Amino acid sequence: MKNSKTSRKKFIQQTALAGVGLMFINPLQLFSQSNNSKIMSKNIKSKGYAGKDTKGKLQPWEFERRAVGDNDILIDIKYSGICHSDIHTIRGHWGPQQYPQVPGHEIAGIVTAVGKNVTKFKVGDKAGVGCMVNSCMKCNSCKNGEEHHCETTGMVGTYGAPDSTSPSGITQGGYSNNIVVTEHFAIRIPENIDLKYAAPLLCAGITTYSPLMKANFQKGDKVGVAGIGGLGHLAIKLAVHKGAEVYAFTTSESKRKDILSFGAKEVIVVDSLDKLKPYAGKLDYMISTIPYAYELSDYAVCVKPYGHFTQVGQPINGEFKIDNAKFFFSRVNFNASLIGGIPETQEVMDLCAENKIYPQIEVIKAEEINDAWDKVVNKEARYRFVIDASTI
Amino acid sequence: MKNSKTSRKKFIQQTALAGVGLMFINPLQLFSQSNNSKIMSKNIKSKGYAGKDTKGKLQPWEFERRAVGDNDILIDIKYSGICHSDIHTIRGHWGPQQYPQVPGHEIAGIVTAVGKNVTKFKVGDKAGVGCMVNSCMKCNSCKNGEEHHCETTGMVGTYGAPDSTSPSGITQGGYSNNIVVTEHFAIRIPENIDLKYAAPLLCAGITTYSPLMKANFQKGDKVGVAGIGGLGHLAIKLAVHKGAEVYAFTTSESKRKDILSFGAKEVIVVDSLDKLKPYAGKLDYMISTIPYAYELSDYAVCVKPYGHFTQVGQPINGEFKIDNAKFFFSRVNFNASLIGGIPETQEVMDLCAENKIYPQIEVIKAEEINDAWDKVVNKEARYRFVIDASTI
Repeated sequence: MKNSKTSRKKFIQQTALAGVGLMFINPLQLFSQSNNSKIMSKNIKSKGYAGKDTKGKLQPWEFERRAVGDNDILIDIKYSGICHSDIHTIRGHWGPQQYPQVPGHEIAGIVTAVGKNVTKFKVGDKAGVGCMVNSCMKCNSCKNGEEHHCETTGMVGTYGAPDSTSPSGITQGGYSNNIVVTEHFAIRIPENIDLKYAAPLLCAGITTYSPLMKANFQKGDKVGVAGIGGLGHLAIKLAVHKGAEVYAFTTSESKRKDILSFGAKEVIVVDSLDKLKPYAGKLDYMISTIPYAYELSDYAVCVKPYGHFTQVGQPINGEFKIDNAKFFFSRVNFNASLIGGIPETQEVMDLCAENKIYPQIEVIKAEEINDAWDKVVNKEARYRFVIDASTI
Repeated sequence: MKNSKTSRKKFIQQTALAGVGLMFINPLQLFSQSNNSKIMSKNIKSKGYAGKDTKGKLQPWEFERRAVGDNDILIDIKYSGICHSDIHTIRGHWGPQQYPQVPGHEIAGIVTAVGKNVTKFKVGDKAGVGCMVNSCMKCNSCKNGEEHHCETTGMVGTYGAPDSTSPSGITQGGYSNNIVVTEHFAIRIPENIDLKYAAPLLCAGITTYSPLMKANFQKGDKVGVAGIGGLGHLAIKLAVHKGAEVYAFTTSESKRKDILSFGAKEVIVVDSLDKLKPYAGKLDYMISTIPYAYELSDYAVCVKPYGHFTQVGQPINGEFKIDNAKFFFSRVNFNASLIGGIPETQEVMDLCAENKIYPQIEVIKAEEINDAWDKVVNKEARYRFVIDASTI
């Protein structure tokens, strides 16, 4: 007769094997079971581009994903966006990583298999995956559509997170040819949007959309966007669509023409902090996507007293400085925002599809990923690289 | 015949001399006139305790104040509170200073002379002066009762600010036996509050009252107060009066009994940051009066998602760090607040007088000022030192 410890182990193995109840189990508790042979027997073969160490040069890698559980779908990936976060993560800027690790959390493709409980998708549907693939689904945040703020297990990131259901022990992301994901964490992609445009909406889109909507600005309000890259250029398009008069702050003079074409009213090339001074107290709201550490108050003071300033870029080591003497005179509220929940991600996808709000992208082959990463770091991306997954 | 430059100079001399129109002239423009002999002839003799260098040891000093202009009142100072800002300023923590400099911006006394245009006071009235003694009075902020956010000249601080009307060239504060001030910047002190209790309301009171009122918390809401000194203990009393359930965060176990007597529901002695963890996401609002640099996010995360956290202490060099990885998960809005305007200062004075909300003070003689400063720095003040100006 088995003791209770053995029974619990078997229960976990079974639920992991079948995919049943997976959403209600803390993935961290399952971690020790990651090499279970029964899981391996039903695994899906995958190939992708993985980081092997902190140097961050990606290389082709063959690996396996878990079998398609009752609540899972299998997506044949067609396109995968490149986000600055991929680089930060693989290079260890936000903490030590397990390797090999396949990055990528802007994933768009076609559903090729569904578990028996799946209701949101059928084979042949367009589907996407963003920055997370699981959470507890029981806490208040999860119930309120803020799965990224799960209060128990925390959200399970799309790559690099401990995951006992993954044969490699961690979640593996979208620079690959397929992915298995619980249906709740997959986003429906409308028929009328090309998958290559849909992909960047799943991180760059939702990350800027969520705080822009919370800012609740009115038509004609002055909205500042600082940092005009993958996120920033979508922030401009979304804010313009919502009726804002957009002021774009960039360090790249070469982006001026593009930025105006995105609908911005004014482009401010911040080659010196003095360029910010004329805007002190002028904006109703400002969002910054600047992905490196900087003195927040220089930008925050551009917002009107009692307005809000949101940071969405996460710098190396994640630390910002605030010069309080500048900041208290500004009377501005500073907050930071992290992606968005599943319902809101669906919302931005539907909005962009319906209104033809597309990211400006450059489609690349898998063998160009490392070059593209260098360009992202060197501010040479215009404005989102998207990998054609057929080349992996 | 005089040229226009000479005429302007004469105009400035006259207006400065008479006090007429002083409120409408940028004090910085008047700076060059500071040694004008006509001003000197009508000056008021004063004695005070002044800092002579960054070492910050105060010494008795005899000096002069400007003559009482048409819009001015002369206050015979009875009590003057000691604020941590006095120490930071005189010791040069916020930038280089001009010496000798008399600190003090919690000033309470009796009106002994009024200019011919004065309507708010008559001789014999109780009156107080807080952290500022002038501003442009023309800009939107000044017109809206936010003189401390004057958009043209900036507010003129009660001590250490360039001031051509002052014989010493800078404003001189309240550690002295009298002060001349434009009536607009003086606060009426109701008959039913002792001057020694009124004094600390003019900085510690308004500095905490202003953000607490803007936080707009409801009766029964959980309000956190971090740093229980001169400001913090008044923040507790004010928040309790407004119906909040107050959680007080201190590093001093020895303050526990006092803090409960101020009306706090709970005292958290933060001898380790772990002590903050049980409060994550629990408070409706939090105000921090911590006067040194610290990692804001450790405290800010105690506030519920989308709530606000206000910093009112200004540390040495004025720089805060924010760990963005903690901060974006919190979804908290951070702001910093600087004292309050004249109407709001009058409001807190009237509220405290009517409701007997008094600071807990220790009255000291002038010769004890330097010891008191050491105690403030060493967290030994219980909770506000107030100088008996008759001992100066």
